[in-house]
Amino acid sequence: MRMLINVAETVVPDALRGLAAAHPELTVDVANRVVVRRDAPVSGKVALVSGGGSGHEPLHSGFVGRGMLDAACPGEVFTSPVPDQMVRAAAAVDSGAGVLLVVKNYTGDVLNFDMAAELAEDEGIQIAKVLVDDDVAVTDSLYTAGRRGTGGTLFVEKLAGAAAEEGAPLERVEALARRVNESSRSFGVALSACSTPAKGGPTFELPPGELELGIGIHGEPGRERRAMMTSGEIADAAVHAVLDDLQPDSPVLLLVNGMGATPLLELYGFTAEVHRVLSERGVPAVRTLVGNYVTSLDMAGASVTVCRADEELLRLWDAPVNTPALRWGC
Amino acid sequence: MRMLINVAETVVPDALRGLAAAHPELTVDVANRVVVRRDAPVSGKVALVSGGGSGHEPLHSGFVGRGMLDAACPGEVFTSPVPDQMVRAAAAVDSGAGVLLVVKNYTGDVLNFDMAAELAEDEGIQIAKVLVDDDVAVTDSLYTAGRRGTGGTLFVEKLAGAAAEEGAPLERVEALARRVNESSRSFGVALSACSTPAKGGPTFELPPGELELGIGIHGEPGRERRAMMTSGEIADAAVHAVLDDLQPDSPVLLLVNGMGATPLLELYGFTAEVHRVLSERGVPAVRTLVGNYVTSLDMAGASVTVCRADEELLRLWDAPVNTPALRWGC
Repeated sequence: MRMLINVAETVVPDALRGLAAAHPELTVDVANRVVVRRDAPVSGKVALVSGGGSGHEPLHSGFVGRGMLDAACPGEVFTSPVPDQMVRAAAAVDSGAGVLLVVKNYTGDVLNFDMAAELAEDEGIQIAKVLVDDDVAVTDSLYTAGRRGTGGTLFVEKLAGAAAEEGAPLERVEALARRVNESSRSFGVALSACSTPAKGGPTFELPPGELELGIGIHGEPGRERRAMMTSGEIADAAVHAVLDDLQPDSPVLLLVNGMGATPLLELYGFTAEVHRVLSERGVPAVRTLVGNYVTSLDMAGASVTVCRADEELLRLWDAPVNTPALRWGC
Repeated sequence: MRMLINVAETVVPDALRGLAAAHPELTVDVANRVVVRRDAPVSGKVALVSGGGSGHEPLHSGFVGRGMLDAACPGEVFTSPVPDQMVRAAAAVDSGAGVLLVVKNYTGDVLNFDMAAELAEDEGIQIAKVLVDDDVAVTDSLYTAGRRGTGGTLFVEKLAGAAAEEGAPLERVEALARRVNESSRSFGVALSACSTPAKGGPTFELPPGELELGIGIHGEPGRERRAMMTSGEIADAAVHAVLDDLQPDSPVLLLVNGMGATPLLELYGFTAEVHRVLSERGVPAVRTLVGNYVTSLDMAGASVTVCRADEELLRLWDAPVNTPALRWGC
């Protein structure tokens, strides 16, 4: 097993101890698995809470901080966090202005966040929810009814987080988060399977010389398996898939996301091809983010996410953000 | 071949086209392979130029920007850039205050930067050089006479870059860069070999269940091959190696660096173990940076770099930096 771990059972708390050591600007409750920005609750501000299975880092813990999330709840690897974590997080960050829960559309996450919302409301916390389902590859999958939530989550958390930081009330932050989700589309490609600590090896078989188009972030099946393609051919497939579905009539924000094990050298080369296809389709990317942001452990591959940009979303994208993984303007 | 590329021959220019597309704040000369901050030359400021083989991204191109490098020269994968690139870069960024060349200690880089220094001086540019050789694992290796330059390069480029941004003259920036190198030590561990595009497969054999202690960033041999170890045992080996050599009498800046394919989840767990060992040795880390910064393509593994911190270096570390890969305070 080629993993930099102690034992599979402690991978998540071990990582949280490291997060605490590296980021004194976060409050990390290792025992209860809740990561909170240290200055929370921020007076008068709507708070954003997200979470999901671990193994997608920096999502979500790496997005906690000014201008993005107020708290994150990491579950076990590829497993939803539990309602208790989410209620704790909401209680820790609520200033009285309410809490928006950002939920990726996986069955376990949806059920647990629903339950957490009820429990938190019982405690007098005003709750709103947004479901992220940006992945165009498949409808209904191993883990989902409907579309999966993947790279679009970053846009929802960044843009709604910026709106909250500007002082927007809960219903506006919620509406904006929905609008961002509706404006975002993703498509991913795997060049290799990922290995979970619990399994100690690949979660599925992908023979050398083949790739999987439309992969999910847990290695769940995509649209089709194909013989290896060039970076340009993969960019064609991914960009056409997202644009055919979104049909944008405006420029877009672009995320070229590494799945975990693809070198940055390759990811930037892929970015050039993604820009080429966008340009051929007459859809300019006004902002481009390149890196490993919504990952799948050690999977090789990449995903493309676009988000229709208008003046407001562009302003919110450029607004200051100060988190471990995304930081500018601060 | 599980690579997100078009053809091996164009990997470097393809990545540079992507860098240009994603980062309008950089001027990227794809044909001549020079990456320059757009506002260069900055009036009155000493300029920093670095470069080296590609495959270690974000090093060096991702460190170009305010508070760090003024220009970077990417070579072919794992191959030194040529003097012509370096002279072009120096000429593009020199404001008249002189240029510091940051050179990792590999034979090809040293020879080419030496030649470039002569050529640039012939053109009337004042040149200083700093050689980075922070890797304690081996003395004299496949590519080096003396120690290799690895993670310490990030500290040299960040801290000397901050000093230059503050207006320090060339001899002070050079002296500071030397001091940072002398204060820095690194040790790396590979859990898998990396694959170069040209070879299309692993550059060396590392059987499953084994790891290599003291690996270089090109997969060149380290100190010893061992049966797989836990994250805690690897942290013991790496931290003892750097501290036994450095013998710091002060707190340190810490870089916990991923080699490319190790998930951030694992890297943060490893960070917890590194902090444990530092604490056992009575050497607190006053700043901790975790991520993939000085990589080796798709190698799994990590390296630990420490840099003795005094008041000046701590201030320079915290100073604003605005580059694709390292950004705070701006």
